[in-house]
Amino acid sequence: MTGLIEAMAETASAVNQELDRLLDRTDAPEGRVLDAMRYSALDGGKRLRPFLVMTTASLFKVSAASALRVAAAIEMIHCYSLIHDDLPAMDNDDLRRGKPTCHRQFDEATAILAGDALLTLAFEVLGEAETHADPAVRCELVVQLAKASGANGMVGGQMIDLLAGNMVMDMNGITRLQQMKTGRIIAFACEAGPILGKAPRQIRTHFQAYAHDLGLAFQIADDLLDTEGDAAVVGKATGKDAAAGKATFVSLLGAERARAQADMLVEQAVSHMDAFGEEADLLRAVARFVVERRS
Amino acid sequence: MTGLIEAMAETASAVNQELDRLLDRTDAPEGRVLDAMRYSALDGGKRLRPFLVMTTASLFKVSAASALRVAAAIEMIHCYSLIHDDLPAMDNDDLRRGKPTCHRQFDEATAILAGDALLTLAFEVLGEAETHADPAVRCELVVQLAKASGANGMVGGQMIDLLAGNMVMDMNGITRLQQMKTGRIIAFACEAGPILGKAPRQIRTHFQAYAHDLGLAFQIADDLLDTEGDAAVVGKATGKDAAAGKATFVSLLGAERARAQADMLVEQAVSHMDAFGEEADLLRAVARFVVERRS
Repeated sequence: MTGLIEAMAETASAVNQELDRLLDRTDAPEGRVLDAMRYSALDGGKRLRPFLVMTTASLFKVSAASALRVAAAIEMIHCYSLIHDDLPAMDNDDLRRGKPTCHRQFDEATAILAGDALLTLAFEVLGEAETHADPAVRCELVVQLAKASGANGMVGGQMIDLLAGNMVMDMNGITRLQQMKTGRIIAFACEAGPILGKAPRQIRTHFQAYAHDLGLAFQIADDLLDTEGDAAVVGKATGKDAAAGKATFVSLLGAERARAQADMLVEQAVSHMDAFGEEADLLRAVARFVVERRS
Repeated sequence: MTGLIEAMAETASAVNQELDRLLDRTDAPEGRVLDAMRYSALDGGKRLRPFLVMTTASLFKVSAASALRVAAAIEMIHCYSLIHDDLPAMDNDDLRRGKPTCHRQFDEATAILAGDALLTLAFEVLGEAETHADPAVRCELVVQLAKASGANGMVGGQMIDLLAGNMVMDMNGITRLQQMKTGRIIAFACEAGPILGKAPRQIRTHFQAYAHDLGLAFQIADDLLDTEGDAAVVGKATGKDAAAGKATFVSLLGAERARAQADMLVEQAVSHMDAFGEEADLLRAVARFVVERRS
Protein backbone atom coordinates (compact mmCIF):
# COMPACT_ATOMS: atom_id res chain seq x y z
CA MET A 1 0.00 0.00 0.00
CA THR A 2 3.07 2.29 0.04
CA GLY A 3 2.49 3.15 -3.62
CA LEU A 4 -1.09 4.15 -2.82
CA ILE A 5 -0.20 6.37 0.13
CA GLU A 6 2.39 8.19 -1.99
CA ALA A 7 0.00 8.54 -4.92
CA MET A 8 -2.75 9.91 -2.65
CA ALA A 9 -0.35 12.39 -1.07
CA GLU A 10 0.73 13.53 -4.52
CA THR A 11 -2.88 14.05 -5.63
CA ALA A 12 -3.76 15.86 -2.41
CA SER A 13 -0.89 18.27 -2.97
CA ALA A 14 -1.76 18.85 -6.64
CA VAL A 15 -5.44 19.42 -5.76
CA ASN A 16 -4.50 21.87 -3.02
CA GLN A 17 -2.47 23.85 -5.54
CA GLU A 18 -5.33 23.81 -8.03
CA LEU A 19 -7.84 24.93 -5.39
CA ASP A 20 -5.44 27.64 -4.25
CA ARG A 21 -5.27 28.89 -7.83
CA LEU A 22 -9.04 28.75 -8.40
CA LEU A 23 -9.98 30.40 -5.09
CA ASP A 24 -9.00 34.05 -5.38
CA ARG A 25 -8.13 36.24 -2.46
CA THR A 26 -9.15 39.88 -2.43
CA ASP A 27 -8.86 42.94 -0.19
CA ALA A 28 -12.33 44.08 -1.33
CA PRO A 29 -15.04 43.89 1.34
CA GLU A 30 -16.40 40.56 0.04
CA GLY A 31 -12.97 39.05 0.83
CA ARG A 32 -14.36 37.52 4.00
CA VAL A 33 -16.39 34.96 2.07
CA LEU A 34 -13.35 34.03 -0.02
CA ASP A 35 -11.29 33.63 3.16
CA ALA A 36 -13.95 31.27 4.51
CA MET A 37 -14.01 29.29 1.25
CA ARG A 38 -10.23 28.92 1.36
CA TYR A 39 -10.30 28.03 5.06
CA SER A 40 -12.63 25.11 4.41
CA ALA A 41 -11.39 23.97 1.02
CA LEU A 42 -7.60 24.16 1.31
CA ASP A 43 -5.26 21.90 3.15
CA GLY A 44 -7.48 19.22 4.58
CA GLY A 45 -8.93 15.79 4.16
CA LYS A 46 -7.77 12.69 2.37
CA ARG A 47 -8.95 14.05 -0.98
CA LEU A 48 -10.42 10.63 -1.79
CA ARG A 49 -12.82 11.96 -4.43
CA PRO A 50 -10.11 13.91 -6.30
CA PHE A 51 -7.91 10.82 -6.14
CA LEU A 52 -10.63 8.76 -7.82
CA VAL A 53 -10.95 11.40 -10.54
CA MET A 54 -7.20 11.56 -11.18
CA THR A 55 -6.79 7.79 -11.17
CA THR A 56 -9.70 6.98 -13.47
CA ALA A 57 -8.69 9.86 -15.76
CA SER A 58 -5.16 8.55 -16.12
CA LEU A 59 -6.58 5.17 -17.27
CA PHE A 60 -8.07 7.05 -20.24
CA LYS A 61 -4.99 9.17 -20.97
CA VAL A 62 -6.78 12.36 -19.96
CA SER A 63 -4.41 15.29 -19.36
CA ALA A 64 -3.64 15.96 -15.71
CA ALA A 65 -4.58 19.64 -16.16
CA SER A 66 -8.06 18.68 -17.30
CA ALA A 67 -8.57 16.03 -14.60
CA LEU A 68 -7.31 18.37 -11.87
CA ARG A 69 -10.02 20.90 -12.64
CA VAL A 70 -12.69 18.22 -12.29
CA ALA A 71 -11.03 16.98 -9.11
CA ALA A 72 -11.07 20.52 -7.70
CA ALA A 73 -14.73 21.00 -8.66
CA ILE A 74 -15.75 17.77 -6.90
CA GLU A 75 -13.80 18.77 -3.83
CA MET A 76 -15.56 22.15 -3.81
CA ILE A 77 -18.89 20.31 -3.72
CA HIS A 78 -17.64 18.02 -0.97
CA CYS A 79 -16.35 20.96 1.10
CA TYR A 80 -19.53 23.02 0.63
CA SER A 81 -21.57 20.05 1.87
CA LEU A 82 -19.38 19.72 4.96
CA ILE A 83 -19.71 23.46 5.73
CA HIS A 84 -23.51 23.36 5.48
CA ASP A 85 -23.87 19.98 7.26
CA ASP A 86 -21.83 21.32 10.19
CA LEU A 87 -24.13 24.34 10.72
CA PRO A 88 -26.02 24.65 14.03
CA ALA A 89 -29.36 24.05 12.25
CA MET A 90 -27.98 20.79 10.81
CA ASP A 91 -25.44 18.58 12.62
CA ASN A 92 -24.14 21.44 14.83
CA ASP A 93 -20.49 20.37 14.76
CA ASP A 94 -17.60 22.35 16.24
CA LEU A 95 -14.76 20.30 14.81
CA ARG A 96 -13.92 19.30 11.25
CA ARG A 97 -10.64 17.85 10.03
CA GLY A 98 -9.24 18.70 13.47
CA LYS A 99 -9.98 22.46 13.17
CA PRO A 100 -12.95 24.62 14.15
CA THR A 101 -15.79 24.25 11.65
CA CYS A 102 -16.34 27.15 9.23
CA HIS A 103 -19.17 28.77 11.21
CA ARG A 104 -17.12 28.52 14.43
CA GLN A 105 -14.07 30.10 12.80
CA PHE A 106 -16.10 32.81 10.97
CA ASP A 107 -19.84 33.01 11.69
CA GLU A 108 -23.00 31.29 10.49
CA ALA A 109 -23.90 33.77 7.76
CA THR A 110 -20.39 33.67 6.30
CA ALA A 111 -20.40 29.87 6.42
CA ILE A 112 -23.72 29.66 4.57
CA LEU A 113 -22.41 32.03 1.90
CA ALA A 114 -19.04 30.26 1.63
CA GLY A 115 -20.87 26.99 0.99
CA ASP A 116 -23.11 28.61 -1.62
CA ALA A 117 -20.13 30.14 -3.40
CA LEU A 118 -18.11 26.90 -3.43
CA LEU A 119 -21.11 25.06 -4.89
CA THR A 120 -21.49 27.74 -7.56
CA LEU A 121 -17.77 27.84 -8.39
CA ALA A 122 -17.70 24.07 -8.96
CA PHE A 123 -20.05 24.50 -11.94
CA GLU A 124 -18.19 27.54 -13.23
CA VAL A 125 -14.97 25.51 -13.29
CA LEU A 126 -16.59 22.54 -15.07
CA GLY A 127 -18.21 24.79 -17.68
CA GLU A 128 -15.04 26.59 -18.68
CA ALA A 129 -13.10 25.66 -21.81
CA GLU A 130 -9.93 24.84 -19.83
CA THR A 131 -11.68 21.76 -18.41
CA HIS A 132 -12.09 20.00 -21.76
CA ALA A 133 -11.87 21.02 -25.40
CA ASP A 134 -15.28 19.48 -26.16
CA PRO A 135 -18.21 21.48 -24.72
CA ALA A 136 -20.43 18.36 -24.88
CA VAL A 137 -18.09 16.71 -22.37
CA ARG A 138 -18.20 19.77 -20.13
CA CYS A 139 -22.01 19.79 -20.23
CA GLU A 140 -22.09 16.13 -19.30
CA LEU A 141 -19.82 16.84 -16.33
CA VAL A 142 -22.07 19.71 -15.22
CA VAL A 143 -25.25 17.66 -15.50
CA GLN A 144 -23.84 14.53 -13.84
CA LEU A 145 -22.32 16.47 -10.94
CA ALA A 146 -25.58 18.38 -10.47
CA LYS A 147 -27.63 15.18 -10.43
CA ALA A 148 -25.23 13.59 -7.95
CA SER A 149 -25.33 16.65 -5.65
CA GLY A 150 -28.94 17.79 -5.78
CA ALA A 151 -32.29 16.86 -4.26
CA ASN A 152 -32.15 13.35 -5.75
CA GLY A 153 -28.53 12.92 -4.65
CA MET A 154 -26.43 14.35 -1.85
CA VAL A 155 -28.87 17.05 -0.66
CA GLY A 156 -31.74 14.54 -0.65
CA GLY A 157 -29.57 12.14 1.36
CA GLN A 158 -28.80 14.84 3.90
CA MET A 159 -32.54 15.61 4.15
CA ILE A 160 -33.26 11.95 4.94
CA ASP A 161 -30.37 11.85 7.38
CA LEU A 162 -31.83 14.80 9.29
CA LEU A 163 -35.16 12.99 9.55
CA ALA A 164 -33.57 9.60 10.31
CA GLY A 165 -33.65 10.03 14.09
CA ASN A 166 -37.44 9.74 13.91
CA MET A 167 -37.61 6.99 11.28
CA VAL A 168 -37.46 3.23 11.44
CA MET A 169 -34.83 2.42 8.86
CA ASP A 170 -34.07 -1.07 7.52
CA MET A 171 -31.09 -2.14 5.39
CA ASN A 172 -32.81 -0.98 2.19
CA GLY A 173 -33.53 2.42 3.69
CA ILE A 174 -29.99 2.87 5.02
CA THR A 175 -28.47 1.73 1.75
CA ARG A 176 -30.60 4.17 -0.25
CA LEU A 177 -29.78 7.00 2.17
CA GLN A 178 -26.07 6.36 1.92
CA GLN A 179 -26.12 5.97 -1.85
CA MET A 180 -27.71 9.39 -2.07
CA LYS A 181 -25.69 11.11 0.63
CA THR A 182 -22.19 9.92 -0.28
CA GLY A 183 -22.47 7.24 -2.95
CA ARG A 184 -23.50 9.34 -5.91
CA ILE A 185 -20.66 11.84 -5.58
CA ILE A 186 -18.16 8.99 -5.25
CA ALA A 187 -19.75 7.45 -8.34
CA PHE A 188 -19.34 10.72 -10.23
CA ALA A 189 -15.67 10.85 -9.21
CA CYS A 190 -15.13 7.35 -10.62
CA GLU A 191 -17.01 8.13 -13.83
CA ALA A 192 -15.20 11.41 -14.43
CA GLY A 193 -12.26 9.57 -16.03
CA PRO A 194 -14.31 7.71 -18.64
CA ILE A 195 -16.42 10.83 -19.30
CA LEU A 196 -13.32 12.99 -19.87
CA GLY A 197 -11.80 10.21 -22.01
CA LYS A 198 -15.04 9.80 -24.01
CA ALA A 199 -15.07 6.09 -23.22
CA PRO A 200 -17.96 4.07 -24.63
CA ARG A 201 -20.97 3.51 -22.39
CA GLN A 202 -20.24 -0.19 -21.70
CA ILE A 203 -16.83 0.79 -20.33
CA ARG A 204 -18.50 3.32 -18.06
CA THR A 205 -20.72 0.63 -16.54
CA HIS A 206 -17.64 -1.08 -15.07
CA PHE A 207 -16.77 2.15 -13.29
CA GLN A 208 -20.34 2.64 -12.11
CA ALA A 209 -20.30 -0.87 -10.63
CA TYR A 210 -16.91 -0.31 -9.02
CA ALA A 211 -18.11 3.02 -7.57
CA HIS A 212 -21.33 1.52 -6.26
CA ASP A 213 -19.52 -1.10 -4.19
CA LEU A 214 -16.73 1.26 -3.17
CA GLY A 215 -19.21 3.89 -1.98
CA LEU A 216 -21.11 1.46 0.23
CA ALA A 217 -17.93 -0.02 1.65
CA PHE A 218 -16.72 3.51 2.38
CA GLN A 219 -19.92 4.31 4.26
CA ILE A 220 -19.87 1.10 6.31
CA ALA A 221 -16.27 1.90 7.25
CA ASP A 222 -17.42 5.40 8.25
CA ASP A 223 -20.10 3.91 10.50
CA LEU A 224 -17.50 1.61 12.07
CA LEU A 225 -15.24 4.61 12.72
CA ASP A 226 -18.17 6.51 14.21
CA THR A 227 -18.79 3.60 16.59
CA GLU A 228 -15.24 2.56 17.37
CA GLY A 229 -13.03 5.46 16.33
CA ASP A 230 -11.21 7.98 18.46
CA ALA A 231 -12.31 11.58 17.81
CA ALA A 232 -8.70 12.78 18.06
CA VAL A 233 -7.68 10.44 15.21
CA VAL A 234 -10.86 10.74 13.13
CA GLY A 235 -10.71 14.56 13.36
CA LYS A 236 -14.43 15.01 14.08
CA ALA A 237 -16.88 14.05 16.80
CA THR A 238 -17.66 10.30 17.00
CA GLY A 239 -20.56 8.30 18.44
CA LYS A 240 -23.05 10.84 17.14
CA ASP A 241 -25.30 8.49 15.18
CA ALA A 242 -25.93 6.25 18.18
CA ALA A 243 -26.56 9.31 20.37
CA ALA A 244 -29.11 10.60 17.82
CA GLY A 245 -30.87 7.22 17.77
CA LYS A 246 -30.11 6.78 14.05
CA ALA A 247 -29.90 3.38 12.46
CA THR A 248 -26.56 2.69 10.78
CA PHE A 249 -25.05 -0.31 9.02
CA VAL A 250 -23.37 -1.12 12.32
CA SER A 251 -26.52 -0.85 14.45
CA LEU A 252 -28.44 -3.03 12.01
CA LEU A 253 -25.76 -5.64 11.27
CA GLY A 254 -23.48 -5.48 14.30
CA ALA A 255 -19.81 -4.52 13.95
CA GLU A 256 -18.58 -7.94 12.90
CA ARG A 257 -21.07 -8.52 10.10
CA ALA A 258 -20.73 -4.91 8.98
CA ARG A 259 -16.99 -5.35 8.65
CA ALA A 260 -17.46 -8.62 6.72
CA GLN A 261 -19.95 -6.86 4.44
CA ALA A 262 -17.51 -4.03 3.75
CA ASP A 263 -14.74 -6.52 2.96
CA MET A 264 -17.03 -8.38 0.58
CA LEU A 265 -18.02 -5.15 -1.18
CA VAL A 266 -14.38 -4.21 -1.63
CA GLU A 267 -13.55 -7.55 -3.26
CA GLN A 268 -16.57 -7.05 -5.51
CA ALA A 269 -15.39 -3.53 -6.40
CA VAL A 270 -11.93 -4.89 -7.21
CA SER A 271 -13.41 -7.56 -9.49
CA HIS A 272 -15.09 -4.88 -11.62
CA MET A 273 -11.63 -3.67 -12.56
CA ASP A 274 -10.58 -7.10 -13.95
CA ALA A 275 -10.71 -5.85 -17.52
CA PHE A 276 -8.26 -3.02 -16.89
CA GLY A 277 -4.98 -4.83 -16.11
CA GLU A 278 -2.30 -3.48 -13.84
CA GLU A 279 -3.06 0.10 -14.83
CA ALA A 280 -6.03 -0.18 -12.43
CA ASP A 281 -3.88 -1.32 -9.50
CA LEU A 282 -4.31 2.01 -7.71
CA LEU A 283 -8.10 1.67 -7.95
CA ARG A 284 -7.83 -1.81 -6.41
CA ALA A 285 -5.56 -0.47 -3.67
CA VAL A 286 -7.78 2.50 -2.83
CA ALA A 287 -10.81 0.21 -2.53
CA ARG A 288 -8.94 -1.80 0.11
CA PHE A 289 -7.75 1.40 1.74
CA VAL A 290 -11.25 2.77 2.39
CA VAL A 291 -12.14 -0.13 4.68
CA GLU A 292 -8.76 -0.27 6.41
CA ARG A 293 -8.39 3.46 7.16
CA ARG A 294 -8.45 4.67 10.74
CA SER A 295 -9.63 8.23 9.99
CA MET B 1 -48.29 49.81 -20.09
CA THR B 2 -51.25 47.41 -20.47
CA GLY B 3 -49.29 45.35 -22.99
CA LEU B 4 -46.44 45.02 -20.52
CA ILE B 5 -48.60 43.91 -17.61
CA GLU B 6 -50.24 41.27 -19.80
CA ALA B 7 -46.91 40.09 -21.18
CA MET B 8 -45.43 39.84 -17.69
CA ALA B 9 -48.43 37.88 -16.43
CA GLU B 10 -48.13 35.52 -19.38
CA THR B 11 -44.44 34.93 -18.68
CA ALA B 12 -45.07 34.44 -14.97
CA SER B 13 -47.65 31.78 -15.74
CA ALA B 14 -45.41 30.01 -18.28
CA VAL B 15 -42.46 30.07 -15.87
CA ASN B 16 -44.60 28.68 -13.06
CA GLN B 17 -45.59 25.78 -15.30
CA GLU B 18 -41.98 25.17 -16.28
CA LEU B 19 -40.84 25.26 -12.64
CA ASP B 20 -43.69 22.94 -11.69
CA ARG B 21 -42.49 20.49 -14.34
CA LEU B 22 -38.82 20.73 -13.35
CA LEU B 23 -39.43 20.43 -9.61
CA ASP B 24 -40.46 16.84 -8.95
CA ARG B 25 -42.60 15.76 -6.07
CA THR B 26 -41.98 12.45 -4.35
CA ASP B 27 -43.37 10.36 -1.49
CA ALA B 28 -39.84 9.17 -0.66
CA PRO B 29 -38.45 10.50 2.64
CA GLU B 30 -36.41 13.25 0.89
CA GLY B 31 -39.74 14.66 -0.36
CA ARG B 32 -39.63 17.32 2.35
CA VAL B 33 -36.81 19.18 0.62
CA LEU B 34 -38.67 19.07 -2.69
CA ASP B 35 -41.80 20.41 -0.97
CA ALA B 36 -39.73 23.29 0.41
CA MET B 37 -38.21 24.00 -3.02
CA ARG B 38 -41.67 24.09 -4.57
CA TYR B 39 -43.04 26.23 -1.74
CA SER B 40 -40.42 28.91 -2.38
CA ALA B 41 -40.09 28.69 -6.15
CA LEU B 42 -43.69 28.33 -7.34
CA ASP B 43 -46.39 30.91 -7.52
CA GLY B 44 -44.72 34.07 -6.38
CA GLY B 45 -42.95 37.23 -7.36
CA LYS B 46 -43.06 39.40 -10.42
CA ARG B 47 -40.74 37.03 -12.32
CA LEU B 48 -38.84 40.05 -13.60
CA ARG B 49 -35.69 38.07 -14.42
CA PRO B 50 -37.57 35.38 -16.38
CA PHE B 51 -39.39 38.16 -18.23
CA LEU B 52 -36.08 39.70 -19.28
CA VAL B 53 -34.89 36.30 -20.52
CA MET B 54 -38.07 35.63 -22.51
CA THR B 55 -38.15 39.12 -23.99
CA THR B 56 -34.50 39.29 -25.06
CA ALA B 57 -34.74 35.71 -26.37
CA SER B 58 -37.70 36.55 -28.57
CA LEU B 59 -35.69 39.39 -30.15
CA PHE B 60 -33.28 36.73 -31.41
CA LYS B 61 -35.94 34.24 -32.52
CA VAL B 62 -34.98 31.75 -29.82
CA SER B 63 -37.60 29.04 -29.23
CA ALA B 64 -39.83 29.64 -26.22
CA ALA B 65 -39.07 26.13 -24.91
CA SER B 66 -35.38 26.91 -24.83
CA ALA B 67 -35.79 30.35 -23.28
CA LEU B 68 -38.22 29.04 -20.64
CA ARG B 69 -35.62 26.62 -19.32
CA VAL B 70 -33.12 29.46 -18.90
CA ALA B 71 -35.83 31.60 -17.31
CA ALA B 72 -36.63 28.80 -14.86
CA ALA B 73 -32.93 28.31 -14.03
CA ILE B 74 -32.46 32.00 -13.27
CA GLU B 75 -35.57 32.01 -11.10
CA MET B 76 -34.23 28.99 -9.19
CA ILE B 77 -31.08 30.99 -8.43
CA HIS B 78 -33.15 34.01 -7.41
CA CYS B 79 -35.38 31.90 -5.14
CA TYR B 80 -32.46 30.06 -3.53
CA SER B 81 -30.86 33.42 -2.72
CA LEU B 82 -34.08 34.64 -1.10
CA ILE B 83 -34.37 31.46 1.00
CA HIS B 84 -30.79 31.76 2.28
CA ASP B 85 -30.92 35.56 2.74
CA ASP B 86 -34.07 35.19 4.86
CA LEU B 87 -32.41 32.74 7.32
CA PRO B 88 -32.05 33.77 10.97
CA ALA B 89 -28.25 33.96 10.60
CA MET B 90 -28.67 36.39 7.69
CA ASP B 91 -31.55 38.88 7.41
CA ASN B 92 -33.84 36.89 9.76
CA ASP B 93 -37.05 37.59 7.86
CA ASP B 94 -40.42 36.04 8.66
CA LEU B 95 -42.29 37.21 5.58
CA ARG B 96 -41.55 36.84 1.88
CA ARG B 97 -43.95 37.52 -0.98
CA GLY B 98 -46.65 37.82 1.66
CA LYS B 99 -46.16 34.28 3.03
CA PRO B 100 -44.00 32.84 5.83
CA THR B 101 -40.37 32.50 4.71
CA CYS B 102 -39.14 28.99 3.91
CA HIS B 103 -37.47 28.40 7.29
CA ARG B 104 -40.61 29.61 9.10
CA GLN B 105 -42.84 27.32 7.06
CA PHE B 106 -40.49 24.31 7.28
CA ASP B 107 -37.38 24.65 9.45
CA GLU B 108 -33.89 26.09 9.12
CA ALA B 109 -32.16 22.89 8.04
CA THR B 110 -34.77 22.19 5.36
CA ALA B 111 -34.51 25.78 4.12
CA ILE B 112 -30.72 25.58 3.82
CA LEU B 113 -31.03 22.32 1.86
CA ALA B 114 -33.86 23.61 -0.34
CA GLY B 115 -31.67 26.59 -1.30
CA ASP B 116 -28.71 24.33 -2.03
CA ALA B 117 -30.84 22.03 -4.18
CA LEU B 118 -32.41 24.90 -6.17
CA LEU B 119 -28.94 26.32 -6.83
CA THR B 120 -27.74 22.91 -8.01
CA LEU B 121 -30.79 22.24 -10.16
CA ALA B 122 -30.33 25.54 -12.01
CA PHE B 123 -27.03 24.28 -13.42
CA GLU B 124 -28.45 20.84 -14.20
CA VAL B 125 -31.20 22.48 -16.25
CA LEU B 126 -28.78 24.75 -18.14
CA GLY B 127 -26.41 21.86 -18.91
CA GLU B 128 -29.05 19.56 -20.39
CA ALA B 129 -29.48 19.19 -24.14
CA GLU B 130 -33.11 20.40 -24.04
CA THR B 131 -31.86 23.90 -23.22
CA HIS B 132 -30.01 24.41 -26.52
CA ALA B 133 -28.79 22.15 -29.30
CA ASP B 134 -25.27 23.59 -29.14
CA PRO B 135 -23.35 22.46 -26.02
CA ALA B 136 -21.01 25.47 -26.36
CA VAL B 137 -24.03 27.72 -25.77
CA ARG B 138 -25.07 25.66 -22.76
CA CYS B 139 -21.55 25.91 -21.31
CA GLU B 140 -21.57 29.66 -21.78
CA LEU B 141 -24.89 29.88 -19.92
CA VAL B 142 -23.51 27.75 -17.07
CA VAL B 143 -20.33 29.81 -16.76
CA GLN B 144 -22.03 33.20 -17.02
CA LEU B 145 -24.74 32.31 -14.50
CA ALA B 146 -22.12 30.93 -12.10
CA LYS B 147 -20.01 34.09 -12.39
CA ALA B 148 -23.08 36.27 -11.82
CA SER B 149 -24.15 34.23 -8.75
CA GLY B 150 -20.89 33.40 -7.00
CA ALA B 151 -18.37 35.07 -4.70
CA ASN B 152 -17.63 37.79 -7.25
CA GLY B 153 -21.33 38.31 -7.93
CA MET B 154 -24.48 37.81 -5.91
CA VAL B 155 -22.95 35.90 -2.97
CA GLY B 156 -20.15 38.46 -2.68
CA GLY B 157 -22.74 41.22 -2.72
CA GLN B 158 -24.67 39.56 0.09
CA MET B 159 -21.42 39.21 2.07
CA ILE B 160 -20.79 42.96 1.73
CA ASP B 161 -24.42 43.71 2.60
CA LEU B 162 -24.08 41.73 5.84
CA LEU B 163 -20.99 43.76 6.76
CA ALA B 164 -22.48 47.06 5.57
CA GLY B 165 -23.97 48.01 8.96
CA ASN B 166 -20.41 48.51 10.21
CA MET B 167 -19.00 50.15 7.08
CA VAL B 168 -18.88 53.70 5.83
CA MET B 169 -20.19 53.34 2.30
CA ASP B 170 -20.06 56.06 -0.36
CA MET B 171 -21.85 56.08 -3.73
CA ASN B 172 -19.10 54.00 -5.33
CA GLY B 173 -19.32 51.41 -2.58
CA ILE B 174 -23.12 51.21 -2.73
CA THR B 175 -23.08 51.00 -6.51
CA ARG B 176 -20.53 48.17 -6.46
CA LEU B 177 -22.48 46.33 -3.75
CA GLN B 178 -25.73 46.55 -5.68
CA GLN B 179 -24.12 45.59 -8.98
CA MET B 180 -22.84 42.44 -7.32
CA LYS B 181 -25.92 41.64 -5.25
CA THR B 182 -28.64 42.17 -7.85
CA GLY B 183 -27.11 43.74 -10.95
CA ARG B 184 -25.13 40.80 -12.27
CA ILE B 185 -28.06 38.38 -12.27
CA ILE B 186 -30.25 40.96 -14.00
CA ALA B 187 -27.46 41.43 -16.52
CA PHE B 188 -27.31 37.69 -17.12
CA ALA B 189 -31.08 37.64 -17.68
CA CYS B 190 -30.73 40.36 -20.32
CA GLU B 191 -27.78 38.64 -22.01
CA ALA B 192 -29.45 35.23 -22.08
CA GLY B 193 -31.32 36.17 -25.27
CA PRO B 194 -28.27 37.13 -27.32
CA ILE B 195 -26.33 34.15 -25.91
CA LEU B 196 -29.09 31.71 -26.89
CA GLY B 197 -29.38 33.42 -30.29
CA LYS B 198 -25.59 33.33 -30.82
CA ALA B 199 -25.60 37.08 -31.44
CA PRO B 200 -22.24 38.69 -32.19
CA ARG B 201 -20.36 40.23 -29.30
CA GLN B 202 -21.03 43.87 -30.30
CA ILE B 203 -24.77 43.18 -30.16
CA ARG B 204 -24.34 41.76 -26.67
CA THR B 205 -22.72 44.99 -25.47
CA HIS B 206 -26.01 46.85 -26.06
CA PHE B 207 -27.77 44.40 -23.77
CA GLN B 208 -25.03 44.65 -21.18
CA ALA B 209 -25.38 48.43 -21.17
CA TYR B 210 -29.17 48.21 -20.96
CA ALA B 211 -28.92 45.72 -18.09
CA HIS B 212 -26.39 47.83 -16.22
CA ASP B 213 -28.67 50.86 -16.13
CA LEU B 214 -31.81 48.81 -15.55
CA GLY B 215 -30.22 46.96 -12.62
CA LEU B 216 -29.18 50.16 -10.85
CA ALA B 217 -32.56 51.80 -11.45
CA PHE B 218 -34.23 48.67 -10.06
CA GLN B 219 -32.13 48.83 -6.91
CA ILE B 220 -32.75 52.54 -6.33
CA ALA B 221 -36.47 51.86 -6.70
CA ASP B 222 -36.09 49.04 -4.16
CA ASP B 223 -34.42 51.43 -1.72
CA LEU B 224 -37.25 53.91 -2.23
CA LEU B 225 -39.80 51.17 -1.53
CA ASP B 226 -37.86 50.16 1.58
CA THR B 227 -38.03 53.76 2.80
CA GLU B 228 -41.50 54.72 1.68
CA GLY B 229 -43.32 51.49 0.92
CA ASP B 230 -46.02 49.75 2.90
CA ALA B 231 -45.07 46.22 4.04
CA ALA B 232 -48.54 44.95 3.23
CA VAL B 233 -48.15 46.04 -0.39
CA VAL B 234 -44.43 45.27 -0.78
CA GLY B 235 -44.96 41.77 0.69
CA LYS B 236 -41.90 41.88 2.96
CA ALA B 237 -40.68 43.95 5.89
CA THR B 238 -39.74 47.55 5.04
CA GLY B 239 -37.54 50.15 6.71
CA LYS B 240 -34.92 47.51 7.53
CA ASP B 241 -31.89 49.19 5.95
CA ALA B 242 -32.34 52.38 7.94
CA ALA B 243 -32.89 50.35 11.13
CA ALA B 244 -29.65 48.45 10.48
CA GLY B 245 -27.76 51.71 9.94
CA LYS B 246 -26.93 50.76 6.36
CA ALA B 247 -26.23 53.36 3.71
CA THR B 248 -28.55 53.13 0.69
CA PHE B 249 -28.99 55.20 -2.45
CA VAL B 250 -31.78 57.00 -0.63
CA SER B 251 -29.79 57.72 2.54
CA LEU B 252 -26.88 59.06 0.48
CA LEU B 253 -28.82 61.04 -2.14
CA GLY B 254 -32.15 61.78 -0.45
CA ALA B 255 -35.41 60.47 -1.89
CA GLU B 256 -35.84 63.20 -4.48
CA ARG B 257 -32.39 62.93 -6.04
CA ALA B 258 -32.55 59.14 -5.85
CA ARG B 259 -35.81 59.17 -7.81
CA ALA B 260 -34.32 61.54 -10.40
CA GLN B 261 -31.27 59.30 -10.70
CA ALA B 262 -33.46 56.23 -11.25
CA ASP B 263 -35.47 58.06 -13.92
CA MET B 264 -32.28 59.15 -15.66
CA LEU B 265 -30.92 55.57 -15.60
CA VAL B 266 -34.15 54.27 -17.11
CA GLU B 267 -33.96 56.75 -20.01
CA GLN B 268 -30.36 55.70 -20.52
CA ALA B 269 -31.36 52.03 -20.49
CA VAL B 270 -34.07 52.73 -23.05
CA SER B 271 -31.60 54.53 -25.32
CA HIS B 272 -29.40 51.42 -25.50
CA MET B 273 -32.28 49.70 -27.27
CA ASP B 274 -32.40 52.33 -30.07
CA ALA B 275 -30.95 49.91 -32.60
CA PHE B 276 -33.67 47.30 -32.05
CA GLY B 277 -36.83 49.00 -33.34
CA GLU B 278 -40.30 48.35 -32.04
CA GLU B 279 -39.49 44.72 -31.31
CA ALA B 280 -37.74 46.05 -28.19
CA ASP B 281 -40.78 47.98 -26.96
CA LEU B 282 -41.37 45.54 -24.10
CA LEU B 283 -37.80 46.07 -22.91
CA ARG B 284 -38.40 49.84 -22.93
CA ALA B 285 -41.67 49.39 -21.06
CA VAL B 286 -40.20 47.07 -18.41
CA ALA B 287 -37.40 49.55 -17.75
CA ARG B 288 -39.99 52.20 -16.98
CA PHE B 289 -41.98 49.70 -14.94
CA VAL B 290 -39.15 48.93 -12.52
CA VAL B 291 -39.05 52.52 -11.25
CA GLU B 292 -42.81 52.98 -11.18
CA ARG B 293 -43.76 49.75 -9.39
CA ARG B 294 -45.21 49.89 -5.89
CA SER B 295 -44.11 46.40 -4.77
